[in-house]
Amino acid sequence: MNINTHTIWEDLQKIRHATPLIHNITNYVVMNNTANALLALGASPIMAHAIEEVEDLVRISGALVINIGTLSEKWIEAMQKAMLFAHKINKPIVFDPVGVGATPYRTATTRQLFAVAPTVIRGNASEVCAILGEEVTKGVDSTQESFAAITAAKQLAQTYQCTVVISGAKDFIIKSDQVIQIDNGHPLMAKVTGMGCTATAIIGAFLTANTDLIAAAHAMAVMGIAGELAGEKAAGPGSLQMHFLDALYNLKKSDIEDRLKLSRI
Amino acid sequence: MNINTHTIWEDLQKIRHATPLIHNITNYVVMNNTANALLALGASPIMAHAIEEVEDLVRISGALVINIGTLSEKWIEAMQKAMLFAHKINKPIVFDPVGVGATPYRTATTRQLFAVAPTVIRGNASEVCAILGEEVTKGVDSTQESFAAITAAKQLAQTYQCTVVISGAKDFIIKSDQVIQIDNGHPLMAKVTGMGCTATAIIGAFLTANTDLIAAAHAMAVMGIAGELAGEKAAGPGSLQMHFLDALYNLKKSDIEDRLKLSRI
Amino acid sequence: MNINTHTIWEDLQKIRHATPLIHNITNYVVMNNTANALLALGASPIMAHAIEEVEDLVRISGALVINIGTLSEKWIEAMQKAMLFAHKINKPIVFDPVGVGATPYRTATTRQLFAVAPTVIRGNASEVCAILGEEVTKGVDSTQESFAAITAAKQLAQTYQCTVVISGAKDFIIKSDQVIQIDNGHPLMAKVTGMGCTATAIIGAFLTANTDLIAAAHAMAVMGIAGELAGEKAAGPGSLQMHFLDALYNLKKSDIEDRLKLSRI
Repeated sequence: MNINTHTIWEDLQKIRHATPLIHNITNYVVMNNTANALLALGASPIMAHAIEEVEDLVRISGALVINIGTLSEKWIEAMQKAMLFAHKINKPIVFDPVGVGATPYRTATTRQLFAVAPTVIRGNASEVCAILGEEVTKGVDSTQESFAAITAAKQLAQTYQCTVVISGAKDFIIKSDQVIQIDNGHPLMAKVTGMGCTATAIIGAFLTANTDLIAAAHAMAVMGIAGELAGEKAAGPGSLQMHFLDALYNLKKSDIEDRLKLSRI
Repeated sequence: MNINTHTIWEDLQKIRHATPLIHNITNYVVMNNTANALLALGASPIMAHAIEEVEDLVRISGALVINIGTLSEKWIEAMQKAMLFAHKINKPIVFDPVGVGATPYRTATTRQLFAVAPTVIRGNASEVCAILGEEVTKGVDSTQESFAAITAAKQLAQTYQCTVVISGAKDFIIKSDQVIQIDNGHPLMAKVTGMGCTATAIIGAFLTANTDLIAAAHAMAVMGIAGELAGEKAAGPGSLQMHFLDALYNLKKSDIEDRLKLSRI
Repeated sequence: MNINTHTIWEDLQKIRHATPLIHNITNYVVMNNTANALLALGASPIMAHAIEEVEDLVRISGALVINIGTLSEKWIEAMQKAMLFAHKINKPIVFDPVGVGATPYRTATTRQLFAVAPTVIRGNASEVCAILGEEVTKGVDSTQESFAAITAAKQLAQTYQCTVVISGAKDFIIKSDQVIQIDNGHPLMAKVTGMGCTATAIIGAFLTANTDLIAAAHAMAVMGIAGELAGEKAAGPGSLQMHFLDALYNLKKSDIEDRLKLSRI
């Protein structure tokens, strides 16, 4: 199973051609950004959380994006209903456990929602560790932290038979014994709210073009390369966000060829 | 009844001078954009949805903007109360039926809320068709699609004695037998979330300066010209959004004179 | 007690070094902006409103930001619970009474929430007057308006033993008989939604580094200087917002030295 410039470009072209509808039940903070990122990528976003209509929207969408950033009771019910229905009709689900581990409420909600296994889970190192109850030991360097998170991600991927993405300065995409590492991106991305949530939404779009591990790797590569292009033009986090959407919209095959830093570890 | 550079400019100046308060009960995704667009135009936005205060806000506002993009039960109740009160005290209402036709919930809600007839309805071709239950037949070209939507819009305008705006590559503003066409705008506008919702909010502001058909035409002209100016400077959808607000804020009479493409069909 | 370039810079460095977590229960319109402003400043924002988790988040945060811009019942309950707990464990609270006075609901809610005295209150002149029920008499010039607001602010600061910030073309930071005036800023800031809310969030961050009056003055100085730098580069409100985040992120000691206009009156 190859993942390379060609396969990334091919799936990006598929998305741009098919403009798949992506249903997002996500947090208030990032709704605008992730909708714009999906549009810039070539997909078609819908943000909707009413329990009365989530099934209808899952039915007509290519993928379901669940993000727990600004939880409340009614939203959890709608997420659960949407996930159950997506599972029933075989629509892929990408799950973003924002802040899991920070409060018991987020941890309990995540585990409750995982009654339906997501197709892909994306979080940062500490979130990935927290889902299964691992304490995040801040390592002396990021390598040590990544190592702990990769171990937790493998267990998580095994438990839910899914792909797990750990995003950060380096991104890791993990399924059973496979670990893909992507070294694209730009430090300024961490200074813009919702960049992680945007990655999650973009995984949703790529899940309409390919299976879990490949889709997640394709999405993280596109995310990282667009972020890199934006970061090189940006004077700070405000302009990074603007250039990021422009870069995503204008992404060329040569950008991927010139920049992709993907390896298997 | 004339609609031209002069009348557009005059009403824009009225808004800039009076800074009318516009009350928005709108969706989470676009609140920030539409508030900023209203400010850039010269109006004064307030976003508020609590049933306890919507009447108080309608009372002090120049127009009410209703947008069903991210519906839920409590919000529908507040919308209904606000619309009833706006009707009672003769405040204009502009209604944006986002996604109507995509789910039975949106269609039912739209029809329920239309117990109070809006002053102006703005949607894309498929939304305008869906309100009265028309299937949107994707035409072989956009002309065919527009034709179907114009027919539906005429019926809708007749039923609710209101003005209907169909926005898209070409905008149509329709009331009884009058059809105004505006050919301003830029293709990148479709790649930014909430541009339609922004048009709706701007119609709200123009409704404080003029009656339904004229206000809607003025608003769509300003929207299209600002979008055009922004599109010519933009490198993608990220920069389009920024330039759009700048263009709206800086709009000069000569911009309208040089660019307005308005016809009656 | 000195407030000068040096103390401002020192606290800014503290924030950049410590990246304090700031818990925001704020309005939908500005969540994205204020999260981005906190990140650009060097702090770490969390936006969360579920009653189930607000105490847990207050516990791990350095300050609590309450903003009533888009109120509803459940949110008020969460705000109250968060404020009570912050008070109990001695975490500073900054309160933004958006639109107080515009509706009885907002006025009643503000007074109800003030069962727990905030550490800092920030509003515009009319909001500051409205909290204690003063009618805002529009003065013939802004000096007259400011004078009325300063009188109201002193009373408010006395009643709640807190610091009150009146923001506008000139900012006033008030506690007992002390009045600090800051003349930084840019007129375009008033044309971007949520700039006041952003100031409030930034006060939250500075409250992790210093006590109420000093923290509020430091925050308003940084806000004004970053706005000034942004305004000089901006072509309108769209680009102002982008440049503002960049300026906040890049703020240097020399920017403060060159620009600070702070006086005691």
